[in-house]
Amino acid sequence: MTSLNTLGEIGLIERIRQETPSPAQSSTIQGIGDDAAVFAIDEQTLGLLSTDMLVEGIHFDLTYVPLRHLGFKAVAVNVSDIAAMNGVPTQLTVSLGLSSRFTVEAVDELYAGIRAACAAYNVDLVGGDTTSSRSGLVLSIAVIGRVDKDHITYRRTAQPNDVICVTGDLGAAYLGLQLLEREKQEYLANPEMQPAISEERAYLIQRQLRPDGRTDIVHELRDLDIVPTAMIDISDGLASELLHLCTQSGTGAVIFDENIPIDDQTYLAADEFKISPITAALNGGEDYELLFTIPPQEFEKLKNHSRITAIGYMTDADGRAPSDRVILATKAGQQTPIRAQGWTAGS
Amino acid sequence: MTSLNTLGEIGLIERIRQETPSPAQSSTIQGIGDDAAVFAIDEQTLGLLSTDMLVEGIHFDLTYVPLRHLGFKAVAVNVSDIAAMNGVPTQLTVSLGLSSRFTVEAVDELYAGIRAACAAYNVDLVGGDTTSSRSGLVLSIAVIGRVDKDHITYRRTAQPNDVICVTGDLGAAYLGLQLLEREKQEYLANPEMQPAISEERAYLIQRQLRPDGRTDIVHELRDLDIVPTAMIDISDGLASELLHLCTQSGTGAVIFDENIPIDDQTYLAADEFKISPITAALNGGEDYELLFTIPPQEFEKLKNHSRITAIGYMTDADGRAPSDRVILATKAGQQTPIRAQGWTAGS
Repeated sequence: MTSLNTLGEIGLIERIRQETPSPAQSSTIQGIGDDAAVFAIDEQTLGLLSTDMLVEGIHFDLTYVPLRHLGFKAVAVNVSDIAAMNGVPTQLTVSLGLSSRFTVEAVDELYAGIRAACAAYNVDLVGGDTTSSRSGLVLSIAVIGRVDKDHITYRRTAQPNDVICVTGDLGAAYLGLQLLEREKQEYLANPEMQPAISEERAYLIQRQLRPDGRTDIVHELRDLDIVPTAMIDISDGLASELLHLCTQSGTGAVIFDENIPIDDQTYLAADEFKISPITAALNGGEDYELLFTIPPQEFEKLKNHSRITAIGYMTDADGRAPSDRVILATKAGQQTPIRAQGWTAGS
Repeated sequence: MTSLNTLGEIGLIERIRQETPSPAQSSTIQGIGDDAAVFAIDEQTLGLLSTDMLVEGIHFDLTYVPLRHLGFKAVAVNVSDIAAMNGVPTQLTVSLGLSSRFTVEAVDELYAGIRAACAAYNVDLVGGDTTSSRSGLVLSIAVIGRVDKDHITYRRTAQPNDVICVTGDLGAAYLGLQLLEREKQEYLANPEMQPAISEERAYLIQRQLRPDGRTDIVHELRDLDIVPTAMIDISDGLASELLHLCTQSGTGAVIFDENIPIDDQTYLAADEFKISPITAALNGGEDYELLFTIPPQEFEKLKNHSRITAIGYMTDADGRAPSDRVILATKAGQQTPIRAQGWTAGS
């Protein structure tokens, strides 16, 4: 018998993908292996389908995650997968596993967050499933989206010399989590304490509790007449996502540590927790920003965009193993291969 | 604070539905309230989206449910929702929450069942999500389907005098579950024992462990040139589903107990467990047969169909409360209002 930990999540998905036969339906355009599956809608339009499951005790801790924020986040992380295909979300379903400790009022709070997110992303809640659960809360969302055939953006189509861009800033969600975990430990040690998270830290907390899916960027790219050559959303950290783009596109990459966009609050909190802010950006995850590539000649259109940063460029793979062809270059001239963090099944 | 049990699953879904705003997307045709949501595809075709979550300890017990059967069943119950809209499934995603006791081999078994069902229903596995779970196994499937605009069948469009039909037979899955539960208790009392389920009981066990979604009936209705006036799949028992059809259509119904299709094995096992076979059919659930209505003049086309049985007819609601307008009529002339069983959240 083989432990799931020996395979890891990526290994497990790859194993499932390899065993999946070719599509039987002519309407299936893209199966396992990107942020969303792709199906035919009409002459000019493709449909997108994605799903994400959030499990209590693994993805969230209800001792500090308000249910309203959790509802919003569950929608946002699914919308983010549609944005990563350069599409917009249209419909979603919500499946809930609820243990008996949840009250009607708690479910109302969760749905208030879900509805707020549906309004924010202009997506319709059209169904779902509600069931009992023996242990904690489980939320599974499936979202459908649409994208023009000429705008769809896969992971596998980046080219050498493309400019690598990220939206927003990275690492903040991870430090927000560290702050929340520290508060929890202090509270457990002394239940009399008052929450002590300062106003300045509010940004980090918000990035953890209530991230945004970047559908705004999808619309802006359209307005700028830019179709990325490849795109992925940053759910597991920049390192892991960039490795996906390079592996699936057959490219290498060089990114520059000084170019990685990191908020001042992230720097301050990283210092306090003695974590490298670059490590938080590379491996922290849950930022739900977009990582995309564009041809070098398109960069002119984007270079003054306040929420898009160029962090490096794609290279030829040159026959190198995936683990050796994605390079982090420092100001001092050091070049280090980037490796992804592992994944382990819950205990 | 209000316990979820005071509301019940149907009450909870109704509460969520009432709070959901009107669709923002022009492509949304039908939201919460039917077996699947409906969205626009092209001039002649509608898309369907449905999702179902299966939770260990609530929906299945891995002490007697083989993972391969569980994978098949998880797909079948989702396909059944698409069939209930008179559609055919095209793509699906599988989200898995796995605790660390699951091995790679166990996941392979589960996916072998999922793939077998995908092949049986001609549907493509196109994606999903794999995550850790702190406790048991959670499976959440989302399925997309298609249906011709002229063939779509909702729950809310049955008419008085329509003939009420069911496919296959009812109550067997429930008695299969009783057999499996008894075996488990006997095994726990005496782990040396050998499984003692006879060949004759295999049908009941199979109905519980590996039910079929009735896409075959969807194709047959097409061939017979019949479009039902209303349809629903029987997941929670005939009583509950018939009440849904009547409530949503604004009709009443009369069904005849002697007409309800029940297999001989179900009768025998019901006798052994001292359960009324009619009660098993009405409230047992998990049969995943289809319940549909057709105009009386269409009945001629179906009356010799070996796997479709007419069990009664729709009536005017006549201002009666939903709980008083669905009637079970016995051979002896008794008329009893049918009520649905409640639902309670997990403990």
